[in-house]
Amino acid sequence: MNTSAFYHRPESEYAYLYTKDTMKIRLRTGIGDVRSVSLIKGDPYLITFDKWYLEKTPMKKMLSTDLHDYWEIETQSKFHRLQYGFCVEGIDGNEIFYGDQGVFPYQEEFLEVANYYFRMPFFQEIDRFHSPEWVKETVWYQIFPERFANGDPTNDPEGTLSWGSKQPDREDFFGGDLQGVIDHLDYLVDLGINGIYFCPIFKATSNHKYDTIDYFEIDPDFGDKELFKKLVDEAHKRGIRIMLDAVFNHMGDYSPQWQDVIKNGENSIYADWFHIHSFPVDDYDMTDIPETARNLSFDTFAFTPHMPKLNTANPEVQAYLLDIATYWIREFDIDAWRLDVANEVDHHFWKRFRKEVTAIKEDFYILGEIWHSSQSWLQGDEFHAVMNYAFTDNIKDFFVNKKISPSKMVSGMNSQQLLYRDQTNEVTFNILDSHDTARILTICNGDKDLAKATLAFMFLQKGSPCIYYGTEIGMLGDNDPDCRRCMVWEEDGQDLAMLAYTKELIKLRKEYSDVITYGDLQWQRVEDNGRLLLSKTTADGTQLLAFFNESAQSVSLDVQGEILLSQKTTPDEAGGFFVENHGFVIYKCEK
Amino acid sequence: MNTSAFYHRPESEYAYLYTKDTMKIRLRTGIGDVRSVSLIKGDPYLITFDKWYLEKTPMKKMLSTDLHDYWEIETQSKFHRLQYGFCVEGIDGNEIFYGDQGVFPYQEEFLEVANYYFRMPFFQEIDRFHSPEWVKETVWYQIFPERFANGDPTNDPEGTLSWGSKQPDREDFFGGDLQGVIDHLDYLVDLGINGIYFCPIFKATSNHKYDTIDYFEIDPDFGDKELFKKLVDEAHKRGIRIMLDAVFNHMGDYSPQWQDVIKNGENSIYADWFHIHSFPVDDYDMTDIPETARNLSFDTFAFTPHMPKLNTANPEVQAYLLDIATYWIREFDIDAWRLDVANEVDHHFWKRFRKEVTAIKEDFYILGEIWHSSQSWLQGDEFHAVMNYAFTDNIKDFFVNKKISPSKMVSGMNSQQLLYRDQTNEVTFNILDSHDTARILTICNGDKDLAKATLAFMFLQKGSPCIYYGTEIGMLGDNDPDCRRCMVWEEDGQDLAMLAYTKELIKLRKEYSDVITYGDLQWQRVEDNGRLLLSKTTADGTQLLAFFNESAQSVSLDVQGEILLSQKTTPDEAGGFFVENHGFVIYKCEK
Repeated sequence: MNTSAFYHRPESEYAYLYTKDTMKIRLRTGIGDVRSVSLIKGDPYLITFDKWYLEKTPMKKMLSTDLHDYWEIETQSKFHRLQYGFCVEGIDGNEIFYGDQGVFPYQEEFLEVANYYFRMPFFQEIDRFHSPEWVKETVWYQIFPERFANGDPTNDPEGTLSWGSKQPDREDFFGGDLQGVIDHLDYLVDLGINGIYFCPIFKATSNHKYDTIDYFEIDPDFGDKELFKKLVDEAHKRGIRIMLDAVFNHMGDYSPQWQDVIKNGENSIYADWFHIHSFPVDDYDMTDIPETARNLSFDTFAFTPHMPKLNTANPEVQAYLLDIATYWIREFDIDAWRLDVANEVDHHFWKRFRKEVTAIKEDFYILGEIWHSSQSWLQGDEFHAVMNYAFTDNIKDFFVNKKISPSKMVSGMNSQQLLYRDQTNEVTFNILDSHDTARILTICNGDKDLAKATLAFMFLQKGSPCIYYGTEIGMLGDNDPDCRRCMVWEEDGQDLAMLAYTKELIKLRKEYSDVITYGDLQWQRVEDNGRLLLSKTTADGTQLLAFFNESAQSVSLDVQGEILLSQKTTPDEAGGFFVENHGFVIYKCEK
Repeated sequence: MNTSAFYHRPESEYAYLYTKDTMKIRLRTGIGDVRSVSLIKGDPYLITFDKWYLEKTPMKKMLSTDLHDYWEIETQSKFHRLQYGFCVEGIDGNEIFYGDQGVFPYQEEFLEVANYYFRMPFFQEIDRFHSPEWVKETVWYQIFPERFANGDPTNDPEGTLSWGSKQPDREDFFGGDLQGVIDHLDYLVDLGINGIYFCPIFKATSNHKYDTIDYFEIDPDFGDKELFKKLVDEAHKRGIRIMLDAVFNHMGDYSPQWQDVIKNGENSIYADWFHIHSFPVDDYDMTDIPETARNLSFDTFAFTPHMPKLNTANPEVQAYLLDIATYWIREFDIDAWRLDVANEVDHHFWKRFRKEVTAIKEDFYILGEIWHSSQSWLQGDEFHAVMNYAFTDNIKDFFVNKKISPSKMVSGMNSQQLLYRDQTNEVTFNILDSHDTARILTICNGDKDLAKATLAFMFLQKGSPCIYYGTEIGMLGDNDPDCRRCMVWEEDGQDLAMLAYTKELIKLRKEYSDVITYGDLQWQRVEDNGRLLLSKTTADGTQLLAFFNESAQSVSLDVQGEILLSQKTTPDEAGGFFVENHGFVIYKCEK
């Protein structure tokens, strides 16, 4: 048996409280190497008296990656304490005991040693990872405010271009604003979404507003606080939650704080607000990027001198940012923060952040922008979830880019889920495109069937899906800045079939959110020709199945159940369906 | 190559800031399966521009266990950001790239993908694990106060037995007190120790005082606050630090709080201070242990109704315990807390605890009593270290109990070190015996040579060693309560040779604490006949070597260098030494 492939880590995603009384326990083993795994467990203080190690409970093979099988079990304990280890039976027939001190023969003389077991010393409700329930039922809609709708031409900045008159360049303004969003709230209700994720709306210089000047002001190009309050209230009335973008890693160089540092150098009261190595800070020119940027006398976001990095270890900066974080909740009742470049801000700050925002609003949602594996932010005391690029990239790499096989996609998706507790997976933020990437339809080369299939596939995964504004009407757009085109509001510029489809998909996602969130995932068919069948099954026997055909050939599918949504299918003679290339069938049955 | 054996976890003991500017990075691979590992690394924002992935830096094979090799490297980054992955060359000649998305061919098309790398997004000094420097140079001495010395017979409780008149039973009192410790401080200075770890000294019923009645009072059998203040001051004058025992998991049932709950039931103002499932709480008899204890209406330490578990999620309890924690630092200047049953108290509380105690005294030392793997308490925001039973048990199991082979011991010791950051390993608390276990000389069946060799071996390991009172004079004692005998103060009852030896060993440990703490460990010989040669080498070329012979046969050893301490050796004809059974030689050379 390949025992060197084993991995387990107490009090991590491998062993955690899922509910107040229930722990989930996982074990990693080498792929295809192990026939069965059982849990050996009991109260730490009764091992000698009860000899609980003589019993074992089978674990379930949960998900697999290209290298590993993962086994899982839910377990409870009367005294809220647990000592546990694993009995692992290899396909070679050997049986071993694996615990806190490594691998031993599965024999009583080893099983009876208390210190050989892993421990969950006490089920601490206060340490448990809590996620906001509402996120599990949310379908998000991402709005880039400068490009969604111009509801009030009086606040247009000088030089505003006529709406949609051209494809956007980096410096263009088209006049989008908050009134434009309010004007179209009923459009969004009709679409079915119930969460809006706004790119930054605070006062800033650029059209994207990531270079904040004043976190306490709505950008005047977008409106004012009164209008924003109205927007939140009107959205809430319609059951739509609001998520704002907090750019706390850095400030814009036109912020009064940075301007003061430029002016007063080391005597500036803000000199310690940033990471400054020497003064003056504006003694550079940017003709030779990135060589010049490498020699800046201060730390920045990436190599962008316009975005000096904030020193979040400075208590004054912490107080300032926490004041911002809580202000918009207290005064405007926002529901979530999306944290820009969240990985480059320190953990110490985010722990304070979580405490303060959840103290005001218990079910507040905290989403970090992190593109790599993120366990250290997802232990229950910082974020609820991260922007799930590493997960959804697998979907794009198979469906759209044709870079990887279906099995590699499944392996990649499973790997990502296995990095986190289920509390995170259930509220993670799944996107196929955003203001930072090319649009999904563009990377699909305009193939709407493919885009629809890809969206459907993403909507069936754990986590809350997000639609980038305009996807629902078939908008195109290459990498930034092209992906930030003006929203098309004239019906003859919209793909109404795509719109109708998106509504159906959103409706399905909301109706079956419980099955998708809590259902037991099984990859029933993962065929290298491009055919996939997955199922989600709940404890009460409801089963959602979804078949996707990304092979070139049509294939016959025997559907036992009620079809909820499908594409590119034709009835076959046997009472089933032919599913064409890019076709899919989502159906339901009761087991 | 056995790629399924790989393990790496960003921002953990596998990748962490060691100094402000230096990261340590580890990789786990299957034992004997990999020829070399190199680090591929660079700034995340320069991957495309610099193509840094075309270069690689060799990592060092650091330590091995019976299942795995571990590779390590120290690395820096100009911009304090790092993206990194590994090039792994198997003994089969294959070369692969391992990163955040798994295993890929070592080819440019994979190496150039930014998202395939692990990340250390920014070197955050505020998040870095800081340990108190002084602990690295400390040799501890554990005192069980009721049994160390009776300096003031006027505070003896009723029924106090004559000092050392019998072997202790559970309920015996012999009159040990704080004045006794003060009286013998110069003895301890002469011995050479520079830290005292006190078992509990707060007001409690039992002789061991783990059933606290009042955390704000010195037990009257031991003295009073004035006397304790004098003890701390006198110890500090002599360069001796003071560590107290904090029992925060539970209280004694004679505490006023629990007595109030017994009296007033759910109307008690302390009803929420504990984990009570129903009232009354005293409706039990203990004739049928543990069956009765299983049905208690409240949570306890283990199944001990005399120790009701505190509800540390209650802010009132938190405030009360934090007040205690800081009071003894503020008012008495203690240097460390040893936290009893630390694993069963919640993380939320310990994070607050760390913040508050280190705010008063920056280099305060926090030591948790945890017997199992403890990563979740050792992330830099709770404890500095744990009582290192799992580490030292390996030493005892080989040297004393003859249960495991030398290679299994080394594997076990290495495994334990690899669970933690070096900041923890450097200040961990190494003990061979304590008030909770049989004494080392007793488990050695009185074989003093073996006990001395075992002590010497432990003293050469990273972490601060602790001597249990009386070990230095050859005291015996079986499991609790026998291990709590009265200290022998008459010279004719002391083993003066053992005392002289212990002084030499302590002197050596203090003189070479830097080499032992920071020196590069190499297991040069690990022979299953029981012979071991280990070396510690510093960057400046100082090398400490130690040879131990636990085989039955004498063996000739060629010593190149200065002998610092040895036992059971005789010169051989070749100018070297015969090392007999239980013999050892510790020597130094400059490389």
